[in-house]
Amino acid sequence: MKRFNHKVTAAIMSATLVASTLVGCGQTADSSAKNETVEVTNETYAANDTKSVSSVNKNIPKYIFLFIGDGMSYPQVQSASYYLGAAASNGGVETKELSFMNFPVVGSAQTFDSTSFCQDSASTATSISTGNKTYSGVINMDTSKTIKFETISEKLKEQLGYKIGVLTSVNLNHATPAAFYAHQASRKNYYEIGQEMIASGFDYFAGGGLLDPTGKGEDLPSLYDVAKEAGYTVTTTKSEIAAVTKDTGKVIAIDENLADGDAMSYNMDLQNGQWNLADYVEKGIEVLDNEKGFFMMVEGGKVDWACHANDAAASINDTLALDAAVQEAYKFYEKHPSETLILVTGDHETGGLTIGFAGTNYDTYLKNLENQTISYAKFDSDYVKAYKENKTPFSQVLVDIKNNFGLVTADAAAAAADPTLVLTDYEVEKLKTAYERTLEVGTSSQSKMTQEEYVLYGTYEPLTVTITHILNNKSGIAFTSYSHTGLPVPVFAIGNGSSLFEGYYDNTDIFKKMASLTGVK
Amino acid sequence: MKRFNHKVTAAIMSATLVASTLVGCGQTADSSAKNETVEVTNETYAANDTKSVSSVNKNIPKYIFLFIGDGMSYPQVQSASYYLGAAASNGGVETKELSFMNFPVVGSAQTFDSTSFCQDSASTATSISTGNKTYSGVINMDTSKTIKFETISEKLKEQLGYKIGVLTSVNLNHATPAAFYAHQASRKNYYEIGQEMIASGFDYFAGGGLLDPTGKGEDLPSLYDVAKEAGYTVTTTKSEIAAVTKDTGKVIAIDENLADGDAMSYNMDLQNGQWNLADYVEKGIEVLDNEKGFFMMVEGGKVDWACHANDAAASINDTLALDAAVQEAYKFYEKHPSETLILVTGDHETGGLTIGFAGTNYDTYLKNLENQTISYAKFDSDYVKAYKENKTPFSQVLVDIKNNFGLVTADAAAAAADPTLVLTDYEVEKLKTAYERTLEVGTSSQSKMTQEEYVLYGTYEPLTVTITHILNNKSGIAFTSYSHTGLPVPVFAIGNGSSLFEGYYDNTDIFKKMASLTGVK
Repeated sequence: MKRFNHKVTAAIMSATLVASTLVGCGQTADSSAKNETVEVTNETYAANDTKSVSSVNKNIPKYIFLFIGDGMSYPQVQSASYYLGAAASNGGVETKELSFMNFPVVGSAQTFDSTSFCQDSASTATSISTGNKTYSGVINMDTSKTIKFETISEKLKEQLGYKIGVLTSVNLNHATPAAFYAHQASRKNYYEIGQEMIASGFDYFAGGGLLDPTGKGEDLPSLYDVAKEAGYTVTTTKSEIAAVTKDTGKVIAIDENLADGDAMSYNMDLQNGQWNLADYVEKGIEVLDNEKGFFMMVEGGKVDWACHANDAAASINDTLALDAAVQEAYKFYEKHPSETLILVTGDHETGGLTIGFAGTNYDTYLKNLENQTISYAKFDSDYVKAYKENKTPFSQVLVDIKNNFGLVTADAAAAAADPTLVLTDYEVEKLKTAYERTLEVGTSSQSKMTQEEYVLYGTYEPLTVTITHILNNKSGIAFTSYSHTGLPVPVFAIGNGSSLFEGYYDNTDIFKKMASLTGVK
Repeated sequence: MKRFNHKVTAAIMSATLVASTLVGCGQTADSSAKNETVEVTNETYAANDTKSVSSVNKNIPKYIFLFIGDGMSYPQVQSASYYLGAAASNGGVETKELSFMNFPVVGSAQTFDSTSFCQDSASTATSISTGNKTYSGVINMDTSKTIKFETISEKLKEQLGYKIGVLTSVNLNHATPAAFYAHQASRKNYYEIGQEMIASGFDYFAGGGLLDPTGKGEDLPSLYDVAKEAGYTVTTTKSEIAAVTKDTGKVIAIDENLADGDAMSYNMDLQNGQWNLADYVEKGIEVLDNEKGFFMMVEGGKVDWACHANDAAASINDTLALDAAVQEAYKFYEKHPSETLILVTGDHETGGLTIGFAGTNYDTYLKNLENQTISYAKFDSDYVKAYKENKTPFSQVLVDIKNNFGLVTADAAAAAADPTLVLTDYEVEKLKTAYERTLEVGTSSQSKMTQEEYVLYGTYEPLTVTITHILNNKSGIAFTSYSHTGLPVPVFAIGNGSSLFEGYYDNTDIFKKMASLTGVK
């Protein structure tokens, strides 16, 4: 009887299992410049596990929706779901699922890139879009930054004549959307990415505004003008995008209500009547629907931004906004069930979000998050900016914290409040220290921070991130990082070919499975 | 176009999706006293997603292995896998999968119980074993604590004549194993649970020693004597269990090398030649194999204990030990592929483990964990106990920390060391404060701790948990809790009926799917 060797690998078993689950296993991440189509065979499965690939390929999914929650892994999905249950509960434990949690297939994908187990959005989107690993920060190029990879969207347009849509709640030339049309050594080449976006000839772009639209030196022709010259209709208001039809031709729709970083607003900050991601998906289906088929990539980009800032309420609300967008696709699926494939995944986890916190032990108080009525970013712009200018007294800050986050101090007002929302002396002291730090240095001097301060505040406004940390913890939620983490992501699938997406595989396999299903080379 | 309402539920879609994914959805968790067999129909799926249940039921899985990593969810599995890759790497990002990560089906199961989203092991094992939700702490009884639920193992023995094995690396009357044979209002009724274990007549028990073997008052007949009278062969040494054959009859095998809490040793603390979980699985297969079939539940219980203590290295090593045990089952599967079902799941997540930490940003240094050569528990017993007796100087403690965890102070010795293992002044100060706290109060006075101290130390030795926190963080790992958290768990499946386990469902469905597959009522 052999003693267990903890370095033993899965080699014993791997030879007998499916090729699709083995691509990328045990290889070094930068051995990537291959673009092979995965051969999916199930002949070594037990009889009851066989799913004939030939039957899968009898008809090709003509309508493919790929939703990517940036930074959305199991914790983001489950916390949003449990939050819905807690919000609906009158005592007792209730649960409510997001729509896509009921999809018949849910695989898992590993997300490491050639740089790290805590990878970035450019490389992970490259993996999903082209089936290749590359370095963090690189968009659809290999690790030598010389070879360009063709994307699934380019292949589907060129080889099958599909119309293509690229949607995002952040900037249209941000890493994730860029990975469906651009090929750049750096994700920061925003102008060049914008030029590739226009050159793609794709049919429907919708979301946040372009970064560096006149170049880093602000001296180049506006990308919006270049797009119009190339035949695009560029809309910048709700009424303009509402007027677009399938006869309009190629469209670039910039949201009317741009917020932080020229992205769309956090869903919790939207005002009545403003468009959200679901609205753009509904319009996209109208624009893209055609006999040859379409491919639509929809990024919920602000789940990531919220989790970077450790803002659980904003993460949950933007995850729910993505779910609402998925429901638009599902309505289409119901009309074309045998021709449609819907995939919902994430590119990586952000923030190390956990449903549970040392201070609350086995309890959660997720309903407390309802008291947060504003994202961290809007609190920064609507309140903290003025605090800095006016050196607002801390007592007034506490009033704003109560009004926007529901956290109350242990004075008279606390008597009527939920005790789990009453700030302890220790927490008030933390807020005060953070507020002093915010007034003193702000976000521009993070490099002066000590190791301890960086762990406390990251690169965020010390006051604001301390508020969300305290509300998170009082809700039974915690974060461990301001960066991405190494958790795998779920891959929810329904429709034509969805069964290919079960199992635990590499994110490059998402491309390979889409390519295999559609037959593109 | 409707505005998105964040309280909208999945009701729009749920009616058209499979029953198996909906059991437990949206219901209150304590509406549980039903034991219905799930009706699995796929008629509303697109054509390519159909998996005929009739074909699944053509033959019943005759040999069922159910591995439960206690506290093991996606983070525990993925961190163990990435650790293997990092340990094998010479620079660059390499990955190595655990064997069961290559299983063809990987579903996800929600784990909430009737008490909390951060549930406990008694209620979650009840869900897996009987298909019912109940309160934390309750074993196979309803929330009124009056109705007993029959377990899958009892049903398989009574209705189909299967032999039954229950294995665990912790105590055989601990919550998870108990949930396969006992029915108690409290998981702490250890003596009564032990009595039910003996009365079960199950064929093979193996693992850690019984808690309260002579009752809480230490005045009742020894459970071991009662077991012998009931016809069990009770082994307590390696040579005795090695001598057991399939002709021995009913067996209770207590491990020879009991460690903390009379559990089996952490895998990383095992000495050469001592048996691990895989050895007991191999022996169990020999004992249980028979024409009528068998059911074997194997708990990797110390993944949970390690994560409670925020000991990442011990968690990873015990996850790898569970993988080695699964590989024993896989060898059996290879001989009987059409008759065997292997399931590998967790009961819940423990600790809020994340692969990523604010202080290390996008980097991880998982290889650093190789420097930890002893579990937190063995460090407590081998070192901290003596520190308390001898009031050992902190300078000597630092030497032991270097020798057992690889963390070095920034003196001459540091020059030769990996810079990521050199303690900062801030970290040395934290260790010193924790050591003073350990000498001052130890673990018995945790109730005197402030909120801040509890978050720092939980109920563990302040020195030891501070050491593992620092090594975790320097490896790019973090925890958020000393309790269980609300992440769903993966359900890896291979073999006869495995395709039923895909999707995102409730942990009660694991029972329902096993019952549906085997036809037990």
